[in-house]
Amino acid sequence: MLKRVIRSEKFLFVPDKDFKKNLKRLLGFLPRHYKLYQLAFVHKSASQVVFHNIKVNNERLEFLGDAILDSLIAEFLFHKFPDHDEGFLTRMRSKIVNRDNLNLIAIKLGISNMVISKTANDNHRSIYGDALEALLGALYLDKGYNQTKKLVGERIIQNHINLNKLLDTETDFKSRIIEWAQKNKRTIHFTSFEETDDQNHAPIFIAHLLIGDEIFGRGSGSSKKEAEQNAARQALQLIEG
Amino acid sequence: MLKRVIRSEKFLFVPDKDFKKNLKRLLGFLPRHYKLYQLAFVHKSASQVVFHNIKVNNERLEFLGDAILDSLIAEFLFHKFPDHDEGFLTRMRSKIVNRDNLNLIAIKLGISNMVISKTANDNHRSIYGDALEALLGALYLDKGYNQTKKLVGERIIQNHINLNKLLDTETDFKSRIIEWAQKNKRTIHFTSFEETDDQNHAPIFIAHLLIGDEIFGRGSGSSKKEAEQNAARQALQLIEG
Repeated sequence: MLKRVIRSEKFLFVPDKDFKKNLKRLLGFLPRHYKLYQLAFVHKSASQVVFHNIKVNNERLEFLGDAILDSLIAEFLFHKFPDHDEGFLTRMRSKIVNRDNLNLIAIKLGISNMVISKTANDNHRSIYGDALEALLGALYLDKGYNQTKKLVGERIIQNHINLNKLLDTETDFKSRIIEWAQKNKRTIHFTSFEETDDQNHAPIFIAHLLIGDEIFGRGSGSSKKEAEQNAARQALQLIEG
Repeated sequence: MLKRVIRSEKFLFVPDKDFKKNLKRLLGFLPRHYKLYQLAFVHKSASQVVFHNIKVNNERLEFLGDAILDSLIAEFLFHKFPDHDEGFLTRMRSKIVNRDNLNLIAIKLGISNMVISKTANDNHRSIYGDALEALLGALYLDKGYNQTKKLVGERIIQNHINLNKLLDTETDFKSRIIEWAQKNKRTIHFTSFEETDDQNHAPIFIAHLLIGDEIFGRGSGSSKKEAEQNAARQALQLIEG
């Protein structure tokens, strides 16, 4: 099957020493079928036309690698958070595999030096992340699932995913509801007020979160910020069920 | 790690002989850790509350199995259609793994008899497909990627996926553009007319496809149908880029 995937190999550029060196650095070994890996770095804008007018670039490998990466991150999160529901797991995964984050990881891995493209703007927001996914697709075809899992675990998850930081954004309910509102084109706003009692206790803050004109969340706390977070959490529970 | 996944096993129902028989029929073998597989059939509505108020049902396994299935179908299509681009692969995959289709496959596999739910409406459109994904998640945890791949290949792809039928819908550009319009809440319509020339050649049909008031596609053909298909194809190219 490999043959079919890389049957266009003779059309591809001859790799220079740097390519092989970079690839070895990325993978930890130099693969025998390195032409397959070369394809992973060919951006659509630098597509090579082969027989039957078929263009080759890294998009098919990206399709495959994207799915494999989703699986591997799903499995990682499944084990890492045994007590969290699938809504949490889904949100955490999308924070990890979103375009911007993957692109950043790809740049840190040095992939930006390896991509061949002819776009005016190499900073296109996902070009490197896409190449990273394509690289995983190539690795999967060449070495199978377990080797790909090993690489993703050791070189991506371990070095480039900060779970604590992701968890922080997860518990930032206010950001999440604002994100939700932007995505769903709804207007939301918070109102808050302070309550004090006659016995000189510390004031309590009360916040309401309105979507349109309707109150979707109420929260209280010892600060306005805390009250708003609690109101946002309640609204998210209503929305996300 | 398995221990953590099924630590709630003592809360689960005791499987009767039918469950084991059905499971064996589904998988082709009777797994040792069958309690993990039981969980795959527990719908959210029949969640079991375990310590710390944590509810267990099949949703976490479904999250995992969904990702694994996506990978396996991606790989299958990647090899099956070596000359098609990733847009085609993506569309074909979504036809295979969409809710309705997976649900139908699950019913054909007999999963509907195994699901435990307390919903008023067991015909909820994806309850069986979700359980099928959860079953794949359980199989993956128990036996690994390659065993899951084998099962998906032999019991799902081979028996329940009709590629020719899927390809027919793929080349039905008119249906695709109508589907797109419904999804994106746009109105489209076709206009067509016949052209004949003075030399008594066969008439040529010309069709235009309008989205709103604007022409998005032009097509010609020896029949009205062919002309409309060509107009729809052109519009799809514009839309999908």
